[in-house]
Amino acid sequence: MTKATPIKFEIQSQCGEARAGVLTTRRGQIETPVFMPVGTAGTVKGIRFEELESADLDARIILGNTYHLWLRPGVDVIKAAGGLHRFIGWDRALLTDSGGFQVWSLGALRKISEEGTEFRSHVDGSLRFLSPEVSMEVQAALGSDIVMVFDECAPGQASHEETERSMNLTARWAKRSKDAFERLQSEGADTGRIQANDLSGRQALFGIIQGAGHLDLRRLSLEQTVNIGFDGYAIGGLSVGEEKSLMFEVIEDIAPRMPNDAPRYLMGVGTPEDLVEAVARGVDMFDCVLPTRNGRTGQAFTSRGKLNIKNAQWANDSRPLDESCRCSVCQRHSRAYLRHLYMSGEMLASILLTHHNLAFFLDTMRGVRQSIRSGEFPKFRREFTERSSISE
Amino acid sequence: MTKATPIKFEIQSQCGEARAGVLTTRRGQIETPVFMPVGTAGTVKGIRFEELESADLDARIILGNTYHLWLRPGVDVIKAAGGLHRFIGWDRALLTDSGGFQVWSLGALRKISEEGTEFRSHVDGSLRFLSPEVSMEVQAALGSDIVMVFDECAPGQASHEETERSMNLTARWAKRSKDAFERLQSEGADTGRIQANDLSGRQALFGIIQGAGHLDLRRLSLEQTVNIGFDGYAIGGLSVGEEKSLMFEVIEDIAPRMPNDAPRYLMGVGTPEDLVEAVARGVDMFDCVLPTRNGRTGQAFTSRGKLNIKNAQWANDSRPLDESCRCSVCQRHSRAYLRHLYMSGEMLASILLTHHNLAFFLDTMRGVRQSIRSGEFPKFRREFTERSSISE
Repeated sequence: MTKATPIKFEIQSQCGEARAGVLTTRRGQIETPVFMPVGTAGTVKGIRFEELESADLDARIILGNTYHLWLRPGVDVIKAAGGLHRFIGWDRALLTDSGGFQVWSLGALRKISEEGTEFRSHVDGSLRFLSPEVSMEVQAALGSDIVMVFDECAPGQASHEETERSMNLTARWAKRSKDAFERLQSEGADTGRIQANDLSGRQALFGIIQGAGHLDLRRLSLEQTVNIGFDGYAIGGLSVGEEKSLMFEVIEDIAPRMPNDAPRYLMGVGTPEDLVEAVARGVDMFDCVLPTRNGRTGQAFTSRGKLNIKNAQWANDSRPLDESCRCSVCQRHSRAYLRHLYMSGEMLASILLTHHNLAFFLDTMRGVRQSIRSGEFPKFRREFTERSSISE
Repeated sequence: MTKATPIKFEIQSQCGEARAGVLTTRRGQIETPVFMPVGTAGTVKGIRFEELESADLDARIILGNTYHLWLRPGVDVIKAAGGLHRFIGWDRALLTDSGGFQVWSLGALRKISEEGTEFRSHVDGSLRFLSPEVSMEVQAALGSDIVMVFDECAPGQASHEETERSMNLTARWAKRSKDAFERLQSEGADTGRIQANDLSGRQALFGIIQGAGHLDLRRLSLEQTVNIGFDGYAIGGLSVGEEKSLMFEVIEDIAPRMPNDAPRYLMGVGTPEDLVEAVARGVDMFDCVLPTRNGRTGQAFTSRGKLNIKNAQWANDSRPLDESCRCSVCQRHSRAYLRHLYMSGEMLASILLTHHNLAFFLDTMRGVRQSIRSGEFPKFRREFTERSSISE
């Protein structure tokens, strides 16, 4: 009899470094590689949960931001509702980040010490303190199915010395995160706890590999993180201002060295092309605000590259955003109509572009998985890249 | 053999002055009394067409604003798309107003003459001219199933003299509207023309009764309008600043005198209570921006009156907006969550409140129709009014 674990991860096909598998969580099975829509403040902006669940999108896991939810509505409100799943009305899997990245993004507004990070709330200006222990407590109260350790992120062009200092702090915080996490699990603090899928019912905890663009530090960070031991491993601190070639250099070097039997999660990346390229280097999980954020600013992702709906050239164009797309927006609405909505400042522009963009990202990952399973991922990758470079 | 008409209207049950029937248009049958969601600029703000068509809402007819669509995206774009139905992707019935009310609302920014109204576009500041002939041309290009005559609206407290002048202008414009309309129909200018439901395939044209709060002028306007002859008749110029008691006095006097065999449409009214009260006085059709506009500002309509989602008292309230409501929002989301979304400025707050409000309005009308058919409308009306006055 094997010991019950909080998640199970099984690789079913491999094609080069690209892997297709199944991640089993207490809230359902997730085929990987998977893209996670970002639900910052307890909502994936501009889209209803019914749409996320629909066949069009079928998102199996979404991300919540600890920083945002902690500040508003606050832990008490979410605890009173019985956790984040019940508060927002979402029964599928949830991953929460640790708040580390958001706090780091505050720049001059925060003060980092060994103990944690002090900053002022963007909501009400109050002085707040976030540490590994606080982050684990908040994430237990949220009851997410996958919890991220509290880390520090070095800037994309950070020096070796600066990165090393930051990476070592992240390692110490990772250990403190795990200790606090274990204590909270044994105390039953996890509001999302359920027994399902032959799993332990507990939250899963993922470690984060830092080290900016320095491969030696990345490898060291990987070693430090694996030594502590987590249910999954993430690559953090990419897509934060460094060159794209450097990002792929790091992924190419680190992903294949990460534990083979645990999910590999590339945080905060990226465009559809980035996703396909990272999968080719062995990554299993992604999250990114691009489909939702760019949807709100009028940019559509299509199989033929990006399309800016504001352009006058679409004023009388009866074609859908993407002629190869089967989503409900492309089945029903023309570029001319979507442009009109956008130019008129109508909320429906954001709603429909967000829906299409998410459909495109999730459908791309569906294609990625199928092609890995059929052994045709290199062909998929080549054709995808060629099509995307056609600019309309 | 009877002459083919653009619409058919059949009253099937009557309960006091309240009537339940079926309005057959070239784009489907509509049970009356009916509420029409307002789709100002080719979109019912904040809601997808799929939701309008869903069993939750099942809106059979929506309204489009000639003024807004004429200015943006303009007639050329909509004509190129093959009419408003095809431009926006909506196959059910559409009613368009004439633009008269919007132009009138511009106040000092417009100049009214016998010929029509000159004004500056709110979109680009250009000088524009709207007249009965132009309005009919635009509405033919939109291809709506029901067209409204171009009218002038007197202010709620207008004097007898001022109202009489305005009403007589409206009558002359009504005649010009009908003449232009007939010419356009015979020229085949209607982009929405389809042969369906054993009808003529042409657009239908409704006349508008004006006369502000002066019953003698209202009766005269009714006579003038019926003498010209239309497919349906609307009461305009109410809910524009007059006392609510005066509004119901006008409706009570005029609605029962309107042709019995044609639909009676009360323009721009009102709250759910107003709708029920107007049905009791013999009205069949309604449109109003309240469910959508108030949804965006955090106000929900419920079976127990209005609810302001911003109130701190809902911060931990796990109940739905309306415990008697079966809409998808009330089935899934709590007041606490909706309040959080609203306080966080999340678009989903508007989307969900709009959905619920429309569901509540449309469901109220469903209840109205059923109670008329079962002869229990007086009981429905009494209970509805009692419940609505409980304020939460």
